[in-house]
Amino acid sequence: MEPVDLAGVRARVDAVLNEFLDGRARTAASGHLPAEVAESVKTFLGAGGKRLRPVLCVTGWHAAGGEGDMAPLVKAAASLEMFHAFALIHDDVMDHSATRRGQPTVHRSLTSRHASGRSALAAKQVGAGAAILIGDMALSWSDELLHTAGLTDGQLRAVLPLVAAMREEVMYGQYLDLTSTGRPSADVERAMRIVRYKTASYTVERPLHIGATLAGAETCLLDELSAFALPVGEAFQLRDDLLGVYGHPAQTGKPCLDDLREGKHTVLVALALRYADSNQQRTLHTLLGKQGLTAEQADCLRQVLSETGARQAVEDLINARLEQAEQALVHSSLPADTAGVLRYLARAATRRAS
Amino acid sequence: MEPVDLAGVRARVDAVLNEFLDGRARTAASGHLPAEVAESVKTFLGAGGKRLRPVLCVTGWHAAGGEGDMAPLVKAAASLEMFHAFALIHDDVMDHSATRRGQPTVHRSLTSRHASGRSALAAKQVGAGAAILIGDMALSWSDELLHTAGLTDGQLRAVLPLVAAMREEVMYGQYLDLTSTGRPSADVERAMRIVRYKTASYTVERPLHIGATLAGAETCLLDELSAFALPVGEAFQLRDDLLGVYGHPAQTGKPCLDDLREGKHTVLVALALRYADSNQQRTLHTLLGKQGLTAEQADCLRQVLSETGARQAVEDLINARLEQAEQALVHSSLPADTAGVLRYLARAATRRAS
Repeated sequence: MEPVDLAGVRARVDAVLNEFLDGRARTAASGHLPAEVAESVKTFLGAGGKRLRPVLCVTGWHAAGGEGDMAPLVKAAASLEMFHAFALIHDDVMDHSATRRGQPTVHRSLTSRHASGRSALAAKQVGAGAAILIGDMALSWSDELLHTAGLTDGQLRAVLPLVAAMREEVMYGQYLDLTSTGRPSADVERAMRIVRYKTASYTVERPLHIGATLAGAETCLLDELSAFALPVGEAFQLRDDLLGVYGHPAQTGKPCLDDLREGKHTVLVALALRYADSNQQRTLHTLLGKQGLTAEQADCLRQVLSETGARQAVEDLINARLEQAEQALVHSSLPADTAGVLRYLARAATRRAS
Repeated sequence: MEPVDLAGVRARVDAVLNEFLDGRARTAASGHLPAEVAESVKTFLGAGGKRLRPVLCVTGWHAAGGEGDMAPLVKAAASLEMFHAFALIHDDVMDHSATRRGQPTVHRSLTSRHASGRSALAAKQVGAGAAILIGDMALSWSDELLHTAGLTDGQLRAVLPLVAAMREEVMYGQYLDLTSTGRPSADVERAMRIVRYKTASYTVERPLHIGATLAGAETCLLDELSAFALPVGEAFQLRDDLLGVYGHPAQTGKPCLDDLREGKHTVLVALALRYADSNQQRTLHTLLGKQGLTAEQADCLRQVLSETGARQAVEDLINARLEQAEQALVHSSLPADTAGVLRYLARAATRRAS
């Protein structure tokens, strides 16, 4: 029934990633270099993840009528997941996060690994530095996976600008996010800009475009994919922001206090600050971004975020975007089966609990 | 007289970098994105640097008889300098360095820029995170400079594996360096491995190979260049290690206590630990990597490093490598004028005070 065998794509992508990383670990070990660099990336990837970007890349290829040997496409799709590993590893260093996907983050693991003979501070610094380097390596390896995917010169030349734009967008989004953190404001437009750069383009639009371009898509198809992708991508990040505050750590794999404790400038927070009465304003300004925020204080914040109506407003924004994306599919020229897969992915990405 | 106009190459490379970064800053500003990302990289590059890698890239091209339009070559050479900016920006974050090229490091500048409305700790974290992202962006931009340099498909395909290898080598070298820091030992072989990966290949051999490959060089020429490049690269890093301990901050642009205070595992230190008597051993083990090392204690360490004979031994290693590199030139088939430039660069890189 499915034109895209989603579980099959994930398995093929994982096989490419594991084979690549096993090869790197072996080469490193035989050259007196630390195998832990490749092994850390492998452990990180093995701990979970939806493989959303590779799946969308392959779906974009089908949308554009891609045919023939899928091996180069799968490798290009795997390079997007390797890039994502880079982005998350660095994100966790910058946010000082302790867990991801229910496991210790890469910098935490490496702090433990290099603790012997060092002070706690020195070990922490080595762990953070090692995770920065491992992220850098994952970024370089994502290039290498793409360059050695077996693409034709024409395919490679066509996707390189898309990959460059995708990287730039997510890095600017992360930069806006980081520099807004700790200074939450009622600036909803700025919060939406973070959503668009950090996620909407990076997570949904660009992977679809990259896959479609590998199959030789024309501009009009890319535009149709964008009409679907941008609202879904925004809804995906808005859901993520809600899960960061109201999610269950056992399901999300991340602590549920971090976003509040750091004072992330999300649409949820911006709307709450816009809607809040003076008592609620006081609570928000006192507790958002408070170092050492307790579980009780976090509950108090959650209550205010709900009572101002901000939580429901974000749910409404998600639903409106999902509806917009589904309408885009209805009016598109996409094959019915590909549209069906996109509809399924859109719902899964925006109605999830993890 | 010179086949390579060194000052001219530096000026052309800088013009490419400035034009690229000015364009990025303008595009960012017009899209409500922070221009400070591109501006920070521009300020960093403008503060100094020898442009050694671009100069060697262009020299490699001449060595292989490169002819015709030099614009694509200069852009490819500039991409190496952009990559180097990435490496140094991240290096300074990992080492918690305060100054580079006589200026505040990128993370320090950004800490100041984002201090308003934040605690000192929060500002420091934003500064470090922003510098990590700016480094990531510089790495992506180095890709983009290469991909849009105007190379033929054949040239691009030929250099991509060299660029990938170069990146992997320097990252492994940095990883070895970082994880050895704070635990200095008499393991000279490990210290030499750091030198080879972190610098010898990255700084000298790969840039020469990349330039030569763009001109269509055969393997035998690349081997001749390696015979020169590896000893020079090792000597370059050994000189850097000496300058990190004995250099004058006014000339090097960096503090002269950092390497000792962090306990960098250099050949200098490894040899000293090997040669030291029991009194000297005690001093080295007590003071190397000591948090809050004072200027007097650093002087004491310098004295021990000299008295064990380690400092002179490193000078001897540098001279032997310079001699080896010059012999390689004598026995090479390189045009006399290119060999002359390489000889000049080798001396400048190993007999410098900054």
